[in-house]
Amino acid sequence: MHTTVGIIGGGPAGLLLARLLHNAGIDSVVLERKDRAYVEQRQRAGILEQATVDVLRACGAGARLDAEGMPHDGIELRFAGRAHRVDFPELTGGRRVWVYAQTEVVKDLIALQLADGGPLLFEAEVHAVEGVDGDRPVIRYTHEGREQTLTCDYVVGCDGFHGVARDAVPEGVRTTYERTYPYSWLGILADAPPVYDELIYAHSERGFALASMRSPSVSRLYLQVPNGTDPADWSDERIWDELDARFALTANPGWRLKRGTVTAKAVLPMRSHVTEPMRYGRLLLAGDAAHIVPPTGAKGLNLAATDVIVLARAFARLKETGSTELLDAYSDTCLRRVWRAEHFSYFMTTTLHADPEQSPFETKLQLSQLHRVATSRHAAAELAENYTGLALEG
Amino acid sequence: MHTTVGIIGGGPAGLLLARLLHNAGIDSVVLERKDRAYVEQRQRAGILEQATVDVLRACGAGARLDAEGMPHDGIELRFAGRAHRVDFPELTGGRRVWVYAQTEVVKDLIALQLADGGPLLFEAEVHAVEGVDGDRPVIRYTHEGREQTLTCDYVVGCDGFHGVARDAVPEGVRTTYERTYPYSWLGILADAPPVYDELIYAHSERGFALASMRSPSVSRLYLQVPNGTDPADWSDERIWDELDARFALTANPGWRLKRGTVTAKAVLPMRSHVTEPMRYGRLLLAGDAAHIVPPTGAKGLNLAATDVIVLARAFARLKETGSTELLDAYSDTCLRRVWRAEHFSYFMTTTLHADPEQSPFETKLQLSQLHRVATSRHAAAELAENYTGLALEG
Repeated sequence: MHTTVGIIGGGPAGLLLARLLHNAGIDSVVLERKDRAYVEQRQRAGILEQATVDVLRACGAGARLDAEGMPHDGIELRFAGRAHRVDFPELTGGRRVWVYAQTEVVKDLIALQLADGGPLLFEAEVHAVEGVDGDRPVIRYTHEGREQTLTCDYVVGCDGFHGVARDAVPEGVRTTYERTYPYSWLGILADAPPVYDELIYAHSERGFALASMRSPSVSRLYLQVPNGTDPADWSDERIWDELDARFALTANPGWRLKRGTVTAKAVLPMRSHVTEPMRYGRLLLAGDAAHIVPPTGAKGLNLAATDVIVLARAFARLKETGSTELLDAYSDTCLRRVWRAEHFSYFMTTTLHADPEQSPFETKLQLSQLHRVATSRHAAAELAENYTGLALEG
Repeated sequence: MHTTVGIIGGGPAGLLLARLLHNAGIDSVVLERKDRAYVEQRQRAGILEQATVDVLRACGAGARLDAEGMPHDGIELRFAGRAHRVDFPELTGGRRVWVYAQTEVVKDLIALQLADGGPLLFEAEVHAVEGVDGDRPVIRYTHEGREQTLTCDYVVGCDGFHGVARDAVPEGVRTTYERTYPYSWLGILADAPPVYDELIYAHSERGFALASMRSPSVSRLYLQVPNGTDPADWSDERIWDELDARFALTANPGWRLKRGTVTAKAVLPMRSHVTEPMRYGRLLLAGDAAHIVPPTGAKGLNLAATDVIVLARAFARLKETGSTELLDAYSDTCLRRVWRAEHFSYFMTTTLHADPEQSPFETKLQLSQLHRVATSRHAAAELAENYTGLALEG
């Protein structure tokens, strides 16, 4: 089999790229290791920036998002027992974000791709990417029990942090930047209406907590926990009690989350990772295959979307003009935004979490920073601009 | 001897407080451990915020400052081989800073105090502060070879980080917040005109460097060096070469500092420290006695000035109305600003210095932050507002 763009990975990055290429008249094949049900159900991010919403609408995947997605005009910060709202449109000249789960984005894109797109193969396990420094790279994979070969003009690795595409960049060429955080998130899904119509980010001496949502009747809640935590050690009651303790308001001691049946419970590690460059020969990396952010800034899915927007434009330019100019610039173009997001995600993470080794001095600095966001227009706008997403060419 | 306010320490905090009290008709005595020549010559800060300039002018110490001080409308940041200017008035609605050395502020205030102020005793070594939890605190000190006693209505400790006043707050009452940084500054004075008419803060993989000035013909220059560095290991030539290397501009490889005779050379440690509360009974702490910042944000002298402005107002209110309301609020009023300055000083320090243990990921985050200041109005304004000083009630 031959295609113009061989896409490894059928998560949001790979699926969105396939869609954008299809709309530009460029053929592609998507190879996804897992089955469709698995891909459609793995819990990931839930916050979409304006640019991500725009591209989903433009490529035809906006109908359900517009019907079911929840636009959010701000977040609430809780610290020192007080609540402070950050108003996004007011601080950014009208920008907002949408709550619409990654699982739903993936379902919408899969349905589109299967309806009229190029091949999207599930349970297609890639085991080698060869010849990316030549003209005709080859992806070797197993599908329906047989070893198969896909020859491509270009290979795009959208196969995530644990994928194989990154390994096709020789060790001597790539540089890895990493940080592992000394805490994790215990995340739950609960059949309970969100207590508040925006996300609540809480700094507490007990550790960070986040109240998010998936829909008007489903809450998504997170607690900072030590690395290595076994979710089985956290009963539902303990989770609710701890969430209430971390969200506690001095002036409103009766404030409580609305409780409901916990339907999923998992521990998520927190990591920052960047691999440079994001292009080597005819291999391009996009999304988590190239960079990971801790989830505190809600940037992972949006960075992936931006990568593939840049990439789709570059392939369109190549098709229209024969010029590889934009493809050649792809890594540099993306990395500026990637490092901005890495910095913002680090800032949000280290400002809001209790590092088990942090000194009382460092806790005071966190509170001073949060107080500054609550009292300075520039500090608040800096958070709001980064949270709602930077202009694509920023 | 009896006085209303016994002031321990004749640095800028103690001298300015004595002056403000004198102008409000409140008597005080200043006890300074060192002799006049020593106090007038110890090298410290050199950047005055607007509020500090305003209070010096208002209390009659503005004449030489206005004649010799150099108003600065910005700073230059250098990183990744590029230069970026931060324009203070444009970003803050008109605020600027002044370059006027602490040595000169001290000379001006001493001259005023000796001309028409209350007692200012040099070589008066305080060895005990007693009874601050009662109505009549006592300062015991040695002066002219004799043990002496000063009884006061209030004692103000302006005797710096190594002073004795802080120890009069019982251990169980005070909380100390601290951080020591894993690097120091090698600071020099040189008879050389500044190469640029504003300060240059340089981030470099070789370490931080700062080009400041004391006058149009005297440069004040700093290099990040390891803790424990012996200044004798740094020849003048090595210092100039290293400064030039750290300030290097990619687009202007011929750029060099103007060299001249090095007249002073010293290594300065970098520390953050806050003692809470800043008031215990009839003892009040001001300036470095209560808080230390690393010098990167140019906040130490200005924080001290703000403390004593707040304090002088509180004593004036007491005299006029008999109310201790402002004195009672002194610690809380100051600590909000202190923590803002601590945070900003930490931010400037950790963004610009090369921690010997920092990872390549952390270096990338520093560069992303600096790039953000160079491209985002809000990020630049946040730096400019903090650098030029916050409104007194902010």
